[in-house]
Amino acid sequence: MTDSATQVYFDHNATTAVDEAAVAAMLPYFQGNYGNPSSSHAYGLRAHRAIEKAREQVALAVGATPSQVIFTSGGSEANNLFIRGVADSITPATLLVSAVEHPCVLRPSQALAWRTSEKWQLHELAVKETGDVDANAAIAALSRIKPAMVSMMLANNETGVIQPVAAVAEAAAALGIWIHTDAVQAFAKIPVNFAELGVHAMTVSSHKIYGPKGVAALIIDQGLPLKPLIYGGGHENGLRSGTENVPAIVGFGVACELAASRMTKLATHTRILRDQMEQGLLSMGAIIFGEGAQRLPNTTYFALPDIEGDTLVVQLNKAGFAVASGAACSSATPGKSHVLESMQIDPMLARCAVRISFGITNTSQQVTDFLSSIKQIVDQLKRLSAIFGAESTQTITPDQSLTR
Amino acid sequence: MTDSATQVYFDHNATTAVDEAAVAAMLPYFQGNYGNPSSSHAYGLRAHRAIEKAREQVALAVGATPSQVIFTSGGSEANNLFIRGVADSITPATLLVSAVEHPCVLRPSQALAWRTSEKWQLHELAVKETGDVDANAAIAALSRIKPAMVSMMLANNETGVIQPVAAVAEAAAALGIWIHTDAVQAFAKIPVNFAELGVHAMTVSSHKIYGPKGVAALIIDQGLPLKPLIYGGGHENGLRSGTENVPAIVGFGVACELAASRMTKLATHTRILRDQMEQGLLSMGAIIFGEGAQRLPNTTYFALPDIEGDTLVVQLNKAGFAVASGAACSSATPGKSHVLESMQIDPMLARCAVRISFGITNTSQQVTDFLSSIKQIVDQLKRLSAIFGAESTQTITPDQSLTR
Repeated sequence: MTDSATQVYFDHNATTAVDEAAVAAMLPYFQGNYGNPSSSHAYGLRAHRAIEKAREQVALAVGATPSQVIFTSGGSEANNLFIRGVADSITPATLLVSAVEHPCVLRPSQALAWRTSEKWQLHELAVKETGDVDANAAIAALSRIKPAMVSMMLANNETGVIQPVAAVAEAAAALGIWIHTDAVQAFAKIPVNFAELGVHAMTVSSHKIYGPKGVAALIIDQGLPLKPLIYGGGHENGLRSGTENVPAIVGFGVACELAASRMTKLATHTRILRDQMEQGLLSMGAIIFGEGAQRLPNTTYFALPDIEGDTLVVQLNKAGFAVASGAACSSATPGKSHVLESMQIDPMLARCAVRISFGITNTSQQVTDFLSSIKQIVDQLKRLSAIFGAESTQTITPDQSLTR
Repeated sequence: MTDSATQVYFDHNATTAVDEAAVAAMLPYFQGNYGNPSSSHAYGLRAHRAIEKAREQVALAVGATPSQVIFTSGGSEANNLFIRGVADSITPATLLVSAVEHPCVLRPSQALAWRTSEKWQLHELAVKETGDVDANAAIAALSRIKPAMVSMMLANNETGVIQPVAAVAEAAAALGIWIHTDAVQAFAKIPVNFAELGVHAMTVSSHKIYGPKGVAALIIDQGLPLKPLIYGGGHENGLRSGTENVPAIVGFGVACELAASRMTKLATHTRILRDQMEQGLLSMGAIIFGEGAQRLPNTTYFALPDIEGDTLVVQLNKAGFAVASGAACSSATPGKSHVLESMQIDPMLARCAVRISFGITNTSQQVTDFLSSIKQIVDQLKRLSAIFGAESTQTITPDQSLTR
């Protein structure tokens, strides 16, 4: 396997390297300024000021006010906080989520519905074959199903497909429905503005935008009924207890500032690479999932028919390219993609899915090299398939089939 | 106010500086090895191996096996995970906690009992005037109250008083009661061994033991019925979803290794300082809370009658000493100490409480200097009190009363 130090990283939707400026900002908070922000002495005050500065940086980057920013340990926690925190605060009713939500929205929603003591009902909103929710269908569903709360992601982590959140939020607000958006994948790739989206809650995360892991935020409308997921000392305005992860929060603040300043440039940069990549892949006969929908500029989710995604990922890894066969965040529990299933993609084709997600350090030369490598790999796999039979590309173990 | 860079830090129960070795171990995971541990490529595998190595380090330090270690974002989350995770898994019944638990055990327990749909009942176990639970009384309560689960901390964060967890755990296990201990303050100060304690779950945290903030672990017996607090991609054996905070977990692992190697030395070092401090304070007429109980070697929780704790902390801060008037973790919601209240301490005396908690870098000279400073401050406050009347030490605002 190629050493990661020399590998081309095409998996920015899974996680990103922490920007140099964010690391530099974090370092003083590990040793010199290591105080607990709740302490009243000089160490504590310094830590407290640092997290309040970061709160302003995050707020500014997402179009919110600092008091609307609740720091959490990650996007999964923030999404769970919305689902469970609102459910704990209102009369049990119906919860509506799109079928392509991240597992950290889907699973807490399912858990809520499974708790027989709770009487919560879960409805999933279908998506079109292009991966996007039909806005009119969603708005009609709000009136028909009358959910108490809705969660609809802004952009999908696998396909990059963008959902019509603002339109649905406007309708939800008019009907008195609490609406949340998971903006983890959209943030820093397309404009994300809490006030303009008109949602009551929004999740953004640090490690997808060149900030450190271990921190995210739930941005909330002050009117949202919300109970904590983690109870204790009453931090984060009583909504999220636990000693604040000061260095990570500081790094997240800096990453937000950077994200806002370079968003347009980064979007253009990745879009050019993405288009180059897709042109090459299409010429090889690839299917691009979500091609007909509005998508993030950095994400290509494709399949080369008859070439299993997992096999391709392993071979590309050996050839020096880090890509994903599915969402990394779900790879702890590997299996088929519920996103492609929701898009009615043929299961045989879905098994061929590979995700490429571009970031700030990627170059056009890397794309050229990648296209050259993938052609070689596919040719070899097809030759082996011709020798061993039509089924063998899906069963040959990579180490037997190819060596570098 | 003295700059924190030159201030003597006597608040190690609130948080600690990250050890140089832990910071050094973390750094490569911010930039070079920044992969998502769930990714199957080289970046991901490297991150995955790093957290599995840390899991072994944590397990070894706490007398558990790696598969028993569930990483969380902090002690508060780990304690909430036990309370809510067990409650979600078994028939609602009674929950028993000691009256001196940290708010991150007390408040989720109260929240459970308040949820009318849940039918959970909360009982609090009283402590003696010395701050410790009477083991026989606790064991008798298990038979009488028949709780489904118990949480009893190993050492109290304010007083340092050690609880008879092993004895209570033995009785609980015999009665089929699930028992958890919050060992956050005890870990790395006294021997903490999961297997020897005989509990079903135990919380340990990184930032109290010279590791980074933002990571802790719930150590669990495999038989414990437990549902996640945070649902999603199925990380941490399905019990805690969310991209792992790789650098923090790596730092925690190193901190655990260091803690195990220097525990005895550190305990002796802080005990000597603690004894020197208490001798000096007693000679000034101080009351030491929990003096008659077994305590952590590093913690002094005292009161100088008629000298308000908050005032003293502010003046000591100005004089260059970082100490706490209560638990930092509760200072987000300041108020009286529920620990001292449970110990039946006179409320007027409880208002005078100040906590000193020693750590690795403290010296005997610092204690000498502190005792000299506190004597001066107390003399000045008493002079002012004599001039302005007996009540005034409790009402004079610090900035008016004294300047350095």
